[in-house]
Amino acid sequence: MPTTPSRVTSRRRGRRSPIELYYWPGIQGRGEFIRLALEDASAEWVDVARLPGARAGMRAMVRILDGEDAGPLPFAAPFVRIDGRVVSQTAAVLAVLAPRLGLVPDDAALQAEALQIQLTIADFVGEVHDTHHPIAGSLYYRDQKAEAKRRARIFVRDRLPKYLGWLEHVLARNRAGQGRWLVGADRTYVDLSAFQVVAGLRYAFPNATARIEASTPRLVALHDRVAARAGLAAYLASERRVPFNQQGIFRHYPELDAPAARRGKSR
Amino acid sequence: MPTTPSRVTSRRRGRRSPIELYYWPGIQGRGEFIRLALEDASAEWVDVARLPGARAGMRAMVRILDGEDAGPLPFAAPFVRIDGRVVSQTAAVLAVLAPRLGLVPDDAALQAEALQIQLTIADFVGEVHDTHHPIAGSLYYRDQKAEAKRRARIFVRDRLPKYLGWLEHVLARNRAGQGRWLVGADRTYVDLSAFQVVAGLRYAFPNATARIEASTPRLVALHDRVAARAGLAAYLASERRVPFNQQGIFRHYPELDAPAARRGKSR
Repeated sequence: MPTTPSRVTSRRRGRRSPIELYYWPGIQGRGEFIRLALEDASAEWVDVARLPGARAGMRAMVRILDGEDAGPLPFAAPFVRIDGRVVSQTAAVLAVLAPRLGLVPDDAALQAEALQIQLTIADFVGEVHDTHHPIAGSLYYRDQKAEAKRRARIFVRDRLPKYLGWLEHVLARNRAGQGRWLVGADRTYVDLSAFQVVAGLRYAFPNATARIEASTPRLVALHDRVAARAGLAAYLASERRVPFNQQGIFRHYPELDAPAARRGKSR
Repeated sequence: MPTTPSRVTSRRRGRRSPIELYYWPGIQGRGEFIRLALEDASAEWVDVARLPGARAGMRAMVRILDGEDAGPLPFAAPFVRIDGRVVSQTAAVLAVLAPRLGLVPDDAALQAEALQIQLTIADFVGEVHDTHHPIAGSLYYRDQKAEAKRRARIFVRDRLPKYLGWLEHVLARNRAGQGRWLVGADRTYVDLSAFQVVAGLRYAFPNATARIEASTPRLVALHDRVAARAGLAAYLASERRVPFNQQGIFRHYPELDAPAARRGKSR
C-alpha cells in the first residue's frame, strides 16, 4: 500500500526503505504489472509520479531517464528503485522483485520458467499495443486508423486465440499447481500478469475476448481467483487502480474489435 | 562448436550433455543471439534443426512446440534444452546460459543489469522486424509494403538513433568497463547481442546506420572488438554463420532505408 509516511516508518524500524516505482501517472500501462505485484504482496512502496505534489516525482523520473543518476540507465519507464539501485524493463523488475516479495519459488528452474512466461506475456502486450499503433507510438491513433484496422483484424483472428490458448495450455500442464496457477504449486507474479491481460482484453476487445473465453476456462478461473485475493481485491476497488482508458495499452476502439455475437448464441 | 559426436564425447568424460538449440535453420533471427553466446564460450552445443538429416531435428522442434514434451511449453522458437529442461524466450535463455558459460559476472545486480539491456535490445529487434511486417508476421512483405514504408520512415528517423544513442550512453557510463563493455568490467552476452544488432542494421539499413555511427564511436568499437574475439571470428567466417537474408529479422529493402548520403559529405 503506497503511503508517503512509510519511508519514515521503515527507517524507524530499521527496515529497508520502500520500493519506488516510476511510471506515467495517468495510465495502467506496463507499470500496472509491477503495481499488482507490490499490492498483492502488501509491499511498502511509493508510486513516485502519483504522490501528492507529483510534479517533483515526474521531475525525478525524467532526471533518471536523462541519465542524471548514477547506475543502470533505463531506456523507458516503468522502472523501480530498490535499495538505491534502478532496475528497468517490466519483466526484469518483476524477476528481481518477486523473490523478495514472496511471489516466486526459490527454485531457479521455476524462476526461469516464470521469466519465460512473463516475457511471452510482454510480447503479447506489445502486440496489443500495436493494434492501435501499428505505424508509430509517436503518432496519434487517428493518424494510423486504417493500418490499425488491418492489423487488429489479424490480431483478433489469429494472435489473440493463439496467446490465450497458450496460457490455457500452460495452466493445464502445470500439475504442481493443479491447473490453478501457471508456475509451480502456488500463485506467482506471472499469475497476476495473466489476470491483468485478461482484464485488459475484456476492456479493449470485449467481443473477441468473450468468444475465446469459452475455450479457456482455466484462464478465466485464474482471472477470478487473482481478482479475489485479499490484497488485490482492495486495491482493484480503490482509487489507486487507474481505470482503463484510451491512453493506455488496452484501449477500446469498437472498430478494432470483432463484431458482437448474434443474439441467441452463447458467448 | 556444434558437432554431432560431442554428445558421445561429453558422456564419456562424465560431463554434462551438450546444450541443444532449437531454431529455424534458414535464418539468423532471434536464435543468433544464442548462437553467438554458445560460440564465444566454445560451448558444446547442437544446432538441432541444422544437423545432417535435419528433418528429424525439425520434427523434434515441432513436437516440443506442440506440447508433446514434459516441462515448460515454449510459445515459439528459439528455445534450448539444458540438462533435459526446455528454456524459451531469447532473453531468458541467455540469462540462464550466461552464468554457466562465463558470459556474465556472478554478481546478482550486474546480472539484473544485463537482463535489462538484453530486454531493451529485444524491444529494438522487435521494432526492426515490424519495419517490414507492420501489419502481421503471417503476411508477405509485398502485402504490407505501403505500411512498411510509413513505419520504416519513422523508425529510421526517430527510433534507430534513440536506441543506438542509448547503447552508446550505457557504454559511456560504464566506468568498470572503461567504456569498452556494456555491463561490468569484462564482456558479457549483452555485448555479443549489441554486436549482432549493429551487424544486422548495417545489412538492413546501411545508409541510416552509417549516418548514426558517426555519433556512436564506442558502439562501433564494441562491434569491432566482439567480431575480433577468437571464438567469434572463426564462427563468423564459417559456414555455420547463416548469412543475413531476406527471410530474417534484418532485411535489406532499399525503399525502407534512408536515402544515400550525397557525395562529398562524410558518411
